Amino acid sequence: MTVARSSRPQLKIRRIKLDTGRENVVVISSRSKALRAEVFRGFSRVELRTGAKSLLATLLLTDDGLVGVDEIGMAEPAFRRFAESAGTLVTVAPAARPASLDAVRAKIQGRSFSASEIGAIIDDVTHYRYSDMEIAAFLVGSASFMTSDELLALSHAMAQAGTQLTWDRDVVVDKHCIGGIPGNRTSMIVVPIVAAHGLTIPKTSSRAITSPAGTADTMEVLARVDLGVDEMKQVVQTCNGCLVWGGHVNLSPADDILISVERPLSLDTREQMVASIMSKKIAAGATHLLIDLPVGPSAKLATAMEAMRLRKLFEFVGDHFGIAVEVITTDGRQPIGNGIGPVLEAQDVMAVLRNEPDAPRDLREKSLRLAAHLIDCDPQLRGGTGYARARELLDSGAALKQMHKIIDAQGPSGCNTDLGTLTADIKAPRDGVVEAIDCLCLNRLARSAGAPIDKGAGIKLFKKIGDSVVQGEPLYRIHAFDDSQFDLAVASAATSSGYAIGLRSAAGGPEL
Amino acid sequence: MTVARSSRPQLKIRRIKLDTGRENVVVISSRSKALRAEVFRGFSRVELRTGAKSLLATLLLTDDGLVGVDEIGMAEPAFRRFAESAGTLVTVAPAARPASLDAVRAKIQGRSFSASEIGAIIDDVTHYRYSDMEIAAFLVGSASFMTSDELLALSHAMAQAGTQLTWDRDVVVDKHCIGGIPGNRTSMIVVPIVAAHGLTIPKTSSRAITSPAGTADTMEVLARVDLGVDEMKQVVQTCNGCLVWGGHVNLSPADDILISVERPLSLDTREQMVASIMSKKIAAGATHLLIDLPVGPSAKLATAMEAMRLRKLFEFVGDHFGIAVEVITTDGRQPIGNGIGPVLEAQDVMAVLRNEPDAPRDLREKSLRLAAHLIDCDPQLRGGTGYARARELLDSGAALKQMHKIIDAQGPSGCNTDLGTLTADIKAPRDGVVEAIDCLCLNRLARSAGAPIDKGAGIKLFKKIGDSVVQGEPLYRIHAFDDSQFDLAVASAATSSGYAIGLRSAAGGPEL
Repeated sequence: MTVARSSRPQLKIRRIKLDTGRENVVVISSRSKALRAEVFRGFSRVELRTGAKSLLATLLLTDDGLVGVDEIGMAEPAFRRFAESAGTLVTVAPAARPASLDAVRAKIQGRSFSASEIGAIIDDVTHYRYSDMEIAAFLVGSASFMTSDELLALSHAMAQAGTQLTWDRDVVVDKHCIGGIPGNRTSMIVVPIVAAHGLTIPKTSSRAITSPAGTADTMEVLARVDLGVDEMKQVVQTCNGCLVWGGHVNLSPADDILISVERPLSLDTREQMVASIMSKKIAAGATHLLIDLPVGPSAKLATAMEAMRLRKLFEFVGDHFGIAVEVITTDGRQPIGNGIGPVLEAQDVMAVLRNEPDAPRDLREKSLRLAAHLIDCDPQLRGGTGYARARELLDSGAALKQMHKIIDAQGPSGCNTDLGTLTADIKAPRDGVVEAIDCLCLNRLARSAGAPIDKGAGIKLFKKIGDSVVQGEPLYRIHAFDDSQFDLAVASAATSSGYAIGLRSAAGGPEL
Repeated sequence: MTVARSSRPQLKIRRIKLDTGRENVVVISSRSKALRAEVFRGFSRVELRTGAKSLLATLLLTDDGLVGVDEIGMAEPAFRRFAESAGTLVTVAPAARPASLDAVRAKIQGRSFSASEIGAIIDDVTHYRYSDMEIAAFLVGSASFMTSDELLALSHAMAQAGTQLTWDRDVVVDKHCIGGIPGNRTSMIVVPIVAAHGLTIPKTSSRAITSPAGTADTMEVLARVDLGVDEMKQVVQTCNGCLVWGGHVNLSPADDILISVERPLSLDTREQMVASIMSKKIAAGATHLLIDLPVGPSAKLATAMEAMRLRKLFEFVGDHFGIAVEVITTDGRQPIGNGIGPVLEAQDVMAVLRNEPDAPRDLREKSLRLAAHLIDCDPQLRGGTGYARARELLDSGAALKQMHKIIDAQGPSGCNTDLGTLTADIKAPRDGVVEAIDCLCLNRLARSAGAPIDKGAGIKLFKKIGDSVVQGEPLYRIHAFDDSQFDLAVASAATSSGYAIGLRSAAGGPEL
């Protein structure tokens, strides 16, 4: 018996301009000298190695000239993550499946995760060692039940996986809304009020994934939002607060990866939502956190009971990690503000900050209420005076001034902020009173009109719940740039406007 | 308000030689005229349309010259499935998620599937409308519980999704082993015996996915196995039986797709296993079915209790669909036969059929026992005479003759059937008696030596449980062709041989 030295041939890295989203993808020739191609199948997982560095990727095989027989083509994200220059020699072998998948399999069979198992899973996810299919197995396998210990371990592991910010202050406040309500850009009013008061509020926000605008998309109408950690710290140093996109700050990177699988599958497990949010807030170094839970028939939470169960989970995790969490439920029956879509929402925000007479009152009141809760975290302040202080800062123009300071510190964004020029008014089909507005429907409409990609696309509301309307009066206006998207939104609104008009008499009672 | 006509530009199909396994993949230019590329992200799902035809696919974006701005590149499986020629104009749009995913989501939240929901899911899976991630959500979401009605609906829907064979006979017998035991090529002995007796046994088998050989891989050493439906029917007409690969016959195609996700995730839900097997047998038109459940410490079933629970599920589904199912448990403590790997297993089979003196006795006896059960299904035969009849057919050479007839009818395979020329003997580390053999370990070893891709790679066993060995005596021989695979297998066997040698005295009692 002779043991020959193993000598798997090496391949030269070639960068290929192929955008494969989040997935690592590599391409080799079906006549590659490095492997007997029949051992590898298209879409199987392989491991690249050079020195101590390795990367898992999904394999495509080609017999076009895309790559030579002595090359391995690395698509964009894989090339960037591997961070080796073109021409570097690597070996490629079938990938061993991540060992942490054994724990996922056991969980599917009914066992619970240990904290170290969750740590290993999140480490593998963060380092792109799980395929989408494997992430789906983890999420779905955890969806039916998750113990308190699992929830804590998941929040902890996710918080540890990325940047961890520290602030040289005793009190660092933060707020978060679970989303689902169109408009509702309270952060962009709360942050300048709270920062003007003097508390530290380093706010990171997400971009829209399934909604027509995230706070980051809307803030980008006014200022640059893709700041790195050092830039963000500088802005907070100068302004007490910021309004930046979380994507560049790399807080809880596993969360972004998990969400990219949760969304297409429409998974919304309570525990996973809480771990996702809390991991980001733990990593962001918050000491006080206000959670906004909108409740309404087309909101994410339909009943106060659901909101209470979620509240308990937030409080439980907050207590464990020493964050003072306050959870409030808010009116989620209809959009907050009049605009839906980045430019229209930014207009609402600035109208409130400027105390313009036609600024949306609901957005102003909700923002003041949230700011009041946060200002009440200030140990310097007498209890219960938060609201008056918030209102004073808004009415006096101090909040507006603070917002301009933040915008200047973050810098200009340079994106197109025109309002969509294709417009259509959607009109009341009869006289009556607005009885309900479907948040999901309006979100879909604004998105099909082009938001958030087209900043100026979206919907401007003229009527809210309780308003009287006469037949033919506009309920809202659709704005778009792209012909086919405009047509789609208009056709969709014609089928279902999202408004329920009740037949009520002028006196206000129901007409029988 | 003006509603313009929607006019999404069309793209010309270009075939690109990119093997993407089972997934539909298409490539467009990031400067494509048909879409605003930022709306589409890499790895998102898109829908192609031309006329009434549509296809869902995973999208890659490129700014290399791979495709022009007016083209859409279709990778191999997508091109083949769409079945339109190069240059055909198609539209491409973000894919709506399959509606049946709503049922998957509800199932994850604890609801059960209706039969029509399962039907819709299997229809979408069969038509490649589910991504791997979505299939994983379905499988994992169903893994924690599946009702009896769901099991029946799943078996039915999967059976309906592909070819459904009918035979002009009252009795059509079939057998199936749930696998996991190396060697164990009983079908290749049972089929010729039963066919020689005169019963119809149209056997389809799978290729190895995670094992070193499937029956289809082993039969391919002797004959062609990739027969289509008509060819298979012709062979059965002539020979009463066949031994073909199920892949070309397209029985329960959804099963192959589900398995391609179950395997990498190591999912092995009982109900899914039963639905998978029974759907193929229902579609194959079997009236009588024998299921072989090997039980042993390194088999798929570790205890008789587990085997019994599985037996009940098979009987339940069989009864519902009018198939007479008989389930037997067999000894799964060690490999059956001496060879592991296609060529070595084919040698075992032929040695048994030829009644050679050194033919493996365990393979002969197990095959006779299984054949006896099937022959006892013959209404013409007196009860309890099946075993004697099976033995008569084997000993007389009638089964061998039938096997040659089947081989001739299926035709020559043309694959290389040499035995691996790189060999290493793995030796007993001390005197004693073989107490246990790890099936999983030997499967892994034979696979790392190159089986089933290299037909002649694998392991030849010299010792089985209960055999005495002296130090240095060979336990088994590794065969391989490829240097690096040979090295890997030898190194792996040195670390863990898979054999437990007990220190027993010559008298047979344990040495204390």
